[in-house]
Amino acid sequence: MNELALQDSPVERLSVAAVARGAKAASRLLASVPGARRDAALRAAADAIERRGLEILAANRRDCDEATRAVKEGRLSRSLFERLQIDQPAIAQMAAGVREVAALPDPLGRSLAITELDKGLTLYKESCPIGVIGIVFEARPEIVPQIAALALKSGNAVILKGGSEAQHSNQAMVQIWIDVFTSFPDIPAEAISLLYTRADVDEMLSRDDEIDLIIPRGSREFVRYVAGRSHISVLGNGEGTCHVYIDRMADLEMALNIAYDSKVQYPAACNAMETLLVHDEIAVVFLPEIISCFQAAGVEVRGCRRTFELAETLGIMPAMADDWGKEYSDLIVSIKIVDSADEAIEHINRYGSGHTESIVTEDTSAAAHFMERVDAAGVYHNASTRFADGFRYGFGAELGISTSKLHARGPVGLEGLTTYKYKLIGDGQTVASYAAGERTFNHRRIK
Amino acid sequence: MNELALQDSPVERLSVAAVARGAKAASRLLASVPGARRDAALRAAADAIERRGLEILAANRRDCDEATRAVKEGRLSRSLFERLQIDQPAIAQMAAGVREVAALPDPLGRSLAITELDKGLTLYKESCPIGVIGIVFEARPEIVPQIAALALKSGNAVILKGGSEAQHSNQAMVQIWIDVFTSFPDIPAEAISLLYTRADVDEMLSRDDEIDLIIPRGSREFVRYVAGRSHISVLGNGEGTCHVYIDRMADLEMALNIAYDSKVQYPAACNAMETLLVHDEIAVVFLPEIISCFQAAGVEVRGCRRTFELAETLGIMPAMADDWGKEYSDLIVSIKIVDSADEAIEHINRYGSGHTESIVTEDTSAAAHFMERVDAAGVYHNASTRFADGFRYGFGAELGISTSKLHARGPVGLEGLTTYKYKLIGDGQTVASYAAGERTFNHRRIK
Repeated sequence: MNELALQDSPVERLSVAAVARGAKAASRLLASVPGARRDAALRAAADAIERRGLEILAANRRDCDEATRAVKEGRLSRSLFERLQIDQPAIAQMAAGVREVAALPDPLGRSLAITELDKGLTLYKESCPIGVIGIVFEARPEIVPQIAALALKSGNAVILKGGSEAQHSNQAMVQIWIDVFTSFPDIPAEAISLLYTRADVDEMLSRDDEIDLIIPRGSREFVRYVAGRSHISVLGNGEGTCHVYIDRMADLEMALNIAYDSKVQYPAACNAMETLLVHDEIAVVFLPEIISCFQAAGVEVRGCRRTFELAETLGIMPAMADDWGKEYSDLIVSIKIVDSADEAIEHINRYGSGHTESIVTEDTSAAAHFMERVDAAGVYHNASTRFADGFRYGFGAELGISTSKLHARGPVGLEGLTTYKYKLIGDGQTVASYAAGERTFNHRRIK
Repeated sequence: MNELALQDSPVERLSVAAVARGAKAASRLLASVPGARRDAALRAAADAIERRGLEILAANRRDCDEATRAVKEGRLSRSLFERLQIDQPAIAQMAAGVREVAALPDPLGRSLAITELDKGLTLYKESCPIGVIGIVFEARPEIVPQIAALALKSGNAVILKGGSEAQHSNQAMVQIWIDVFTSFPDIPAEAISLLYTRADVDEMLSRDDEIDLIIPRGSREFVRYVAGRSHISVLGNGEGTCHVYIDRMADLEMALNIAYDSKVQYPAACNAMETLLVHDEIAVVFLPEIISCFQAAGVEVRGCRRTFELAETLGIMPAMADDWGKEYSDLIVSIKIVDSADEAIEHINRYGSGHTESIVTEDTSAAAHFMERVDAAGVYHNASTRFADGFRYGFGAELGISTSKLHARGPVGLEGLTTYKYKLIGDGQTVASYAAGERTFNHRRIK
């Protein structure tokens, strides 16, 4: 494929309004496409990604060439540049990821509840697509097939806006999906489309008649920007300020492993621990051990006043007031000594972000109390906070982790892209006959 | 109880910030109060409402006296005045309603899913309270015990702001709940509180650190005002523009009954039909019949061009373009002749509000197609739209009907006041051992 062909973009640029209207119409058709057809299209897309890998690599080379200049001129960070690059193994991985989504159970048409309201009048609660989803994501082009696959699997039309650095890569990949959809007469090509500019995003945020959900991926500031500008519901990845509390009844070897894993295994993750809470009774034994483990791994330790007094000789830093609740996303940990599980719970509920919180203890009733009282998407007993993840939870694929309490909480998989509708099937029933007392409801729960 | 005592309000007026902080703290304690205790407090509240009925009636008399002056001076509508009044049977009804909520199954701690991630590492998805809910409602004081009961049953703290016309009644009732909570040592009195002014509402909308959900009840404009002013999630009753489609394969007697019931049984309801869609093939037989039924019931009929031509002699009005999608909430109906079920579906998806839509037909595959393609909270086959209601659905109690697709859709019962958390119970697992391939997930679905 030559560069000229790529310059005359095969993706037609419509206005955002036209894209949104097309997506809405497509979403209505998509809602009744059977699961087997959606899966067939997913497998066809995986094949097309492999078959047309060179196109993707050529488009990506253009993005990388431009990004190289931008890095030289200091307009782009080295780490962003590295996330932009795609190679042949990445193509194979993308195709494999799409096939994995195809193999997941159908999230649509699931029967959530059935109630017989009266003889011959039955209410079915069934999962169905949300409709049109707008997703704004960072510059990683591998995300395109992942999002496209999740959206198609869940019967939603999707409007994508990726990082501008990855524009040609994104375009090439979206075109593959459009071509696959075009080859399936029952799947509308408007079910996927791409936007290009920041102004497009602002316009998209105003299309609340057509778009049902916005998923902003990126910095916390960006998520807030989106939520503040739109009447459309937003499913945002919240910040992750996670804690591990080592109870007085903890198995200290287990505590060491869990605290270490929660901090060190991947400190940039949102499910990494930021603050370690330690019960006073075991602090004198436990703290020197964990602190030396942390220090051996290059972790900067900041201690509360009591920790500092206990471990000053170990070369730790004092924690300042603003250390509590801070998401370091780095090899830094703050440590606080508490007098009780309740003090730990209070600290977590005050400073935590409602993401994932863990207690290490052999006392199951203390664990149960902690898990009831701590207000977070994930409450763990004797496990690392790093388990908070859609793949580890067995969801097969993940859109992000929600710290919101409504609609979807915690790791969001395909279920987070569905809603439900009530289907009521009768044989001519009117409310008047119930109001008059001629008929009465029995409300027999069938499922 | 004399009036002087009421003037010195027993409900202490705290700042909104203090109320919100108190509610947050209370919500955390409430989350672990067992269901049996919550139900006992509900039954105690029902008893107290009956026992202290005279207090409520005296407070209500003050509201009614002031409202009488307001009606005379033209500051208050007669219908609002009527909804303000409470009598002895209303007291008994309120108590009975609270007892009914007490008798419902516990919405908390329900096991929604269980997955064994690996031997000894099990993930539980369990229902739990949302936290703090702010509810702004119209001037009907009977709503106070209903909301208070649903909130306590679902373990949420609640901040109420009722219509100012009902201020004394609301105050008297909230005080009863506070007194009941005070007599239960494990239930914090701050779990319920009352705000007084419109400025309080604005202040409440800004307390997104403490308040998790706002439920505005009232006019569409008010719901929009709230949604536009707050970062807090809003569960709003949407407008109800419902349709009934009479298919070419309909049983016409059934069609007559359903169309009549959907419009006439209670036209002010949000689940009443606004527009009747009729297939062309049966229009000439069906329309004269239904139109004369409507007219006998005092319904004003507005027809599309084809309806008008067919039924001009029956004395109907022509429907204007803005009749489609209009919520009359009155004895007015618009009628449109369509050439196919797909045209009906398109009309509904374009003009409907996503509330409740019904098809009348003996053709089950046409019905299934309609129910897949129509994008609404309720899609009905051979049943009146008026069935869209939490009580009729068997939810026991209802907060309203949501036309939003996220979190709660359709009639919202206790389940709409809950969210879920993931509880992960392990025996010391770390992510590092899975990353290193020493252990693997089995993701065995237990429930």
